[in-house]
Amino acid sequence: MTTELLSRKADFPGMVTADGKPWHYLDTAATAQKPQAVVDAMTRALGRDYATVHRGVYSRSAEMTLGYEAARRRIAAFVGGQEDEIVFTRGATEAINLVAATWGVANLKKGDRILLSTLEHHSNIVPWQMLREKTGVEIDVCPLTEDGRIDIEAASRIVGKRHKLIALAHVSNVLGSKLDVAAAADLARSVDAKLLLDGCQAVPRLKVDVEALGCDFYVFSAHKLYGPTGIGALWAKKDILDAMPPYQGGGSMIDRVTFERTTWADAPTRFEAGTPAITEAIAFAAAADYVDSIGIEAIEAHEERLTAMARDELAKINSLRLYGPEDSAGIISFTLGDIHPHDLGTILDEENVAIRAGHHCAQPLMDHLGVPATARASFALYSDEDDIAALLRGIERTMRIFGS
Amino acid sequence: MTTELLSRKADFPGMVTADGKPWHYLDTAATAQKPQAVVDAMTRALGRDYATVHRGVYSRSAEMTLGYEAARRRIAAFVGGQEDEIVFTRGATEAINLVAATWGVANLKKGDRILLSTLEHHSNIVPWQMLREKTGVEIDVCPLTEDGRIDIEAASRIVGKRHKLIALAHVSNVLGSKLDVAAAADLARSVDAKLLLDGCQAVPRLKVDVEALGCDFYVFSAHKLYGPTGIGALWAKKDILDAMPPYQGGGSMIDRVTFERTTWADAPTRFEAGTPAITEAIAFAAAADYVDSIGIEAIEAHEERLTAMARDELAKINSLRLYGPEDSAGIISFTLGDIHPHDLGTILDEENVAIRAGHHCAQPLMDHLGVPATARASFALYSDEDDIAALLRGIERTMRIFGS
Repeated sequence: MTTELLSRKADFPGMVTADGKPWHYLDTAATAQKPQAVVDAMTRALGRDYATVHRGVYSRSAEMTLGYEAARRRIAAFVGGQEDEIVFTRGATEAINLVAATWGVANLKKGDRILLSTLEHHSNIVPWQMLREKTGVEIDVCPLTEDGRIDIEAASRIVGKRHKLIALAHVSNVLGSKLDVAAAADLARSVDAKLLLDGCQAVPRLKVDVEALGCDFYVFSAHKLYGPTGIGALWAKKDILDAMPPYQGGGSMIDRVTFERTTWADAPTRFEAGTPAITEAIAFAAAADYVDSIGIEAIEAHEERLTAMARDELAKINSLRLYGPEDSAGIISFTLGDIHPHDLGTILDEENVAIRAGHHCAQPLMDHLGVPATARASFALYSDEDDIAALLRGIERTMRIFGS
Repeated sequence: MTTELLSRKADFPGMVTADGKPWHYLDTAATAQKPQAVVDAMTRALGRDYATVHRGVYSRSAEMTLGYEAARRRIAAFVGGQEDEIVFTRGATEAINLVAATWGVANLKKGDRILLSTLEHHSNIVPWQMLREKTGVEIDVCPLTEDGRIDIEAASRIVGKRHKLIALAHVSNVLGSKLDVAAAADLARSVDAKLLLDGCQAVPRLKVDVEALGCDFYVFSAHKLYGPTGIGALWAKKDILDAMPPYQGGGSMIDRVTFERTTWADAPTRFEAGTPAITEAIAFAAAADYVDSIGIEAIEAHEERLTAMARDELAKINSLRLYGPEDSAGIISFTLGDIHPHDLGTILDEENVAIRAGHHCAQPLMDHLGVPATARASFALYSDEDDIAALLRGIERTMRIFGS
């Protein structure tokens, strides 16, 4: 590989420890650090620019409304959608819950089936179980290939005419495995099922174009895309979104309210009850601008290279077991002999290396792998070879401490 | 009145226009400006302190978790509740929707009744109408007194054994009228109904102690309390919250997930699916600290005095009609002859005076008042006599322009 690694650590105020040392942050799959540009956008929006949206007759509120709607356009464009197809939610979790509670309740009935996969995050399992409680819909689970990909060929043997929805992770938050979206979309089309993609881990790592992908719903969170907490997005095809009943009731989402009868605003406003996360939307757009200023292709190449380097080095450690495919997207799960991942994580922390240890909100996948937890290192545009070196040093030290 | 007015405008970076002139912001009932302390808390949380909560094995995540849970304690204390009685939501709107979709669906059935009032914000109407669709519960509407208070005596003639919930605004967002909470709580107790208070306008203006008030649910938004957007709180009595089924499904809110069966975490975690609004919670607590550093009693006295001054002056204008009671809490609604409130708002904007004009998300109240819209001026701890003088000058100029 000849791509030069990115070198943008200095853009991120969080990438130093409290005592000013380099912080080797390898937990971006949980949440990404924020570039100064995002922090600044938030500061301006909370300060000099602050006002409410959609209702002010004064100029600053009108400007904030323009900013909020420009953010919607910006986020739509970032994933290749139209602005009236983007609903701002609290995050991907709420986006999936919204689809389940509105589209799901309106369209699915007892006997209909949903296909998920073994590697789904709890956020793409539990909302469908709650829908199962309400409607009697049934859930099927697509198995994984040996190396931890969603096995679409196996899925094609499961899926039939009763399947109304296929809901899958675009990139696994544990294994980094990338979904074969084209095959998943073909399969969904073949039985006239809708396709929902959980894009949390994909959007910061791969070029996403919802129209080219051929999905019907796409969900993601700002905080994993170098943006703020408290906001995310649901993209849904215009005709589907237009036909969905409202989710939460309140201000802004209505057309006319009387106690006898209330009528709804058009989508996407219909799905945004109450004062929205105004400053978060502005900062979300700033995050998209920042990523685009570097280029998602460059970020993908950067993470690919770091992932390959790290996997090569980790594979040399005898007692270390790697999970997931060779070409995982910036996320590596592993276990280290009998050492509990939490112990590894704690010792790494002493070396200013931050990894995640646990079930990663994917207990069914842990059950499948036969482990209670894995250690997970995940990369971002700000990760570099020093982070990998520090991780390897920490693993060696842990092995010495545990005498393994 | 001998209280000295507060003088804290300089704490608020938003209180100047783009060209550096004083901004007469009289739309705090829509959303409050943020003190620098809140902006700084957000900047730190997004920057040097940033990490996820509840799952990191590394120290910064552990610290962020402490910060997030300290924010929950802080907000609980601010309204006199216990920390395990506070659920962080997107705002008051989501909090009411959460109660309707969980407690409401679990406890209310066809034939049960809910009492609301004529002056409720859409956020305290529409969620109950959506519950009506789902369950067949019926809605009654408490009328107002001549001067625009919720008429609890009238309510006592409506409410009976079939009423399971009374849901009322603690302070009206249009009229500023304060609810007689003691009477409302007595009434609720007399029929064993729960009492939900919409505290959006009360929490920034009055001392709130949920235990002393005798309510069962209390909801409010951070952005009206000088805090960030994207977060708010539901307070509910411990035994009620503990018995409520979950709202959204996803990470964090579960105990154990398998595809067959999922079990839930305890409250309040059970109601916070997915990565929460971490930095918003930290900044929400900073807002509570800021308000306490001044003292809510001092803020109440300050706004009382400004309200009395403004009402006195406005009452001198012949064509001006004032709505709401004399002792309204910091919020004044009015109309000016035949001049549409939007036209007034637009002309005031030219004088750097920001008021709200419209239905204020309270269309049933507008129908009751017999107007499509009112002009609304609302005060905050940063409001002062200059703002009132600027409002009066702007009204005079508007009257000259319209020749009235």
